[in-house]
Amino acid sequence: MELFRIEKTCPDTGARAGLLTTPHGSISTPVFMPLATQGSVKALAPDDLSAIRARILLGNTYHLYLRPGIEVIKRLGGLHRFMAWEGPLLTDSGGFQVFSLGPLRRVNDEGVLFRSHIDGSEHFLTPELAIEIQEGLGADIIMVLDECPPYSENARLISEAMHRTHVWAERCLGRHHRRDQALFGIVQGGTSIPLRKESAEYLVSLDFPGYAIGGLSVGEPKDLMYLVARETAGLLPLDKPRYLMGVASPEDLVECISCGMDMFDCALPTRIARNGALFTRHGRANIHNSRFKTQDRSVDPDCDCYTCRTFSAAYLHHLFKCEELLAYRLATIHNLTFILRLMEEMRRAIIEGSFLKFKESFLANYKPAASHHFTVLSPSAKL
Amino acid sequence: MELFRIEKTCPDTGARAGLLTTPHGSISTPVFMPLATQGSVKALAPDDLSAIRARILLGNTYHLYLRPGIEVIKRLGGLHRFMAWEGPLLTDSGGFQVFSLGPLRRVNDEGVLFRSHIDGSEHFLTPELAIEIQEGLGADIIMVLDECPPYSENARLISEAMHRTHVWAERCLGRHHRRDQALFGIVQGGTSIPLRKESAEYLVSLDFPGYAIGGLSVGEPKDLMYLVARETAGLLPLDKPRYLMGVASPEDLVECISCGMDMFDCALPTRIARNGALFTRHGRANIHNSRFKTQDRSVDPDCDCYTCRTFSAAYLHHLFKCEELLAYRLATIHNLTFILRLMEEMRRAIIEGSFLKFKESFLANYKPAASHHFTVLSPSAKL
Repeated sequence: MELFRIEKTCPDTGARAGLLTTPHGSISTPVFMPLATQGSVKALAPDDLSAIRARILLGNTYHLYLRPGIEVIKRLGGLHRFMAWEGPLLTDSGGFQVFSLGPLRRVNDEGVLFRSHIDGSEHFLTPELAIEIQEGLGADIIMVLDECPPYSENARLISEAMHRTHVWAERCLGRHHRRDQALFGIVQGGTSIPLRKESAEYLVSLDFPGYAIGGLSVGEPKDLMYLVARETAGLLPLDKPRYLMGVASPEDLVECISCGMDMFDCALPTRIARNGALFTRHGRANIHNSRFKTQDRSVDPDCDCYTCRTFSAAYLHHLFKCEELLAYRLATIHNLTFILRLMEEMRRAIIEGSFLKFKESFLANYKPAASHHFTVLSPSAKL
Repeated sequence: MELFRIEKTCPDTGARAGLLTTPHGSISTPVFMPLATQGSVKALAPDDLSAIRARILLGNTYHLYLRPGIEVIKRLGGLHRFMAWEGPLLTDSGGFQVFSLGPLRRVNDEGVLFRSHIDGSEHFLTPELAIEIQEGLGADIIMVLDECPPYSENARLISEAMHRTHVWAERCLGRHHRRDQALFGIVQGGTSIPLRKESAEYLVSLDFPGYAIGGLSVGEPKDLMYLVARETAGLLPLDKPRYLMGVASPEDLVECISCGMDMFDCALPTRIARNGALFTRHGRANIHNSRFKTQDRSVDPDCDCYTCRTFSAAYLHHLFKCEELLAYRLATIHNLTFILRLMEEMRRAIIEGSFLKFKESFLANYKPAASHHFTVLSPSAKL
């Protein structure tokens, strides 16, 4: 089974349309992966996710390891069956969350000692354990344990984390046995192009079936992020999928697909939905705003999601004001639909040869959230 | 259009199967009406309610009057359109909630002065205003403003509330103009059979199209509630629908249908669902219980709802432990399905002539919740 196939590349940018094939089905790329952190995309059920055409979900190893525990999920037939999701799944290694614990964790070359944020219990996560856990969960795509430092211009710190990531990548490869899972390597190196080059070359020499780009969207300026994404994409094999971790604002998706990235995940669309921030083609709308109090039109008349097809902005405004549980589901359905449709449109544009035009037109209309709303999610907020 | 038609009566009990016809569709009775207090059945969307075969919903005038306000709902085309529910709706008068406000309200013969629980603003609810608001909301069935005192053996207090209810009923009738709405009277009189008789006779003389029984399930012993329900049913016209307000535990539904009641509403099934108490044919199951941690079967293997068809008890247990929003939707779907299926089964049994047998068999298997869990909801908890 061939994991990845490029179908079309954009002549004007680095963008590509591809097909990722897993034991649980095929996924057209570029693709956005909603977060099912604790085995549930917050506020949605699997039938909601099918209805909005989500194709692959991401489970967080850190959370699932602590609760309900890997033995429980194994006993219940693995993560797919546990959460009743029949499509493809990706799990991360748990590293990102553990490194976000700050004073609750200590790292050495062997692994990371951390305390659970739930009950304070002590755990030691090694590359081998990260793979063992992910084999137990049974996702289609799994990740090596890496060290993801926050944005820093301290080259020594970034370099140390990168070298540790390399050693751990090799140990993960050595421990991984399940043939029905693709194990991705993770390129680190911060915003240093020489370090990114060293990291990419080393990981490519280990011949992973796919590569993630870690350590971006961790506090660096946006233009720098786009630059590093573009340069790093150029260092990776053409025929392997590229997964840019933790990125999902509409403008970043457009820019980073343009850089040659294929896969994305981020808590942003679902988290801001629960705060009442809804995507439109012109930017985010704050549903709490009193201008929606009597608006009979939906929040985004261009959208075909259940929320926009069925309810006025006034009703959604009312639900948020009353803190009705339905508000969070409806807003989440809308924001994920917005992102998934945007990905579908970009894929279509790549295939039709009009991606550059789409990109320019989208970015000309879309007003990104003000930077203070747009602060890159701090790692610990991911918990 | 004939509002109500009896299809079959039970020869052994007072139970009846009927058909209630409204401008938004017909409803087979006995029927349970889920609460859409603020224009949303908590945690569910209209498509969920159609899927579980809910036929009529109940909106709370008190809440909708305060938020978003009647002018907003009128401007958006009425309550059906506002909440995107195409089926029948019933609204209460707001009286029950207002009388539950305790120190926040003062009553005289003219009406009730109360302060909003949201912003402390002062409002004066009269029988005329209760009708005006309900005409604005546009439900298919609306209710007179009544005074519903808590359980008391103080006959003077109960009698005063009853007489005020009678005067107000007449004022409501005088103010009601919409021909597409059925206005129901409400029988009061506490647990006094003579007062219930006086109230029923008076209201029947006003010739309402349907009658509610208020002032039960407000703290009185269960056997007394059943006795009063049975006696009161016997005082009402055979050919008019009878709505027992605020009752919905499975054993109470069975008993009160047996007494001759046709319509029911209560926050209980949805509220306890959000606390993790799930109905089964043997009683309530507490999903937090550790015995569910690894249970691969659904909570209620006899149930065909989305929740039970799709997820293990272990997954539901996990969602509740993690306080995932999906937990509340799945549990609500299950509890409402349980109640709605129970109603359908009783209707079928009445039609097939086997209701008494069904009742005996159900009650022999079903263990009601311990009384400290089962405390009748205090009126103020309804807010």
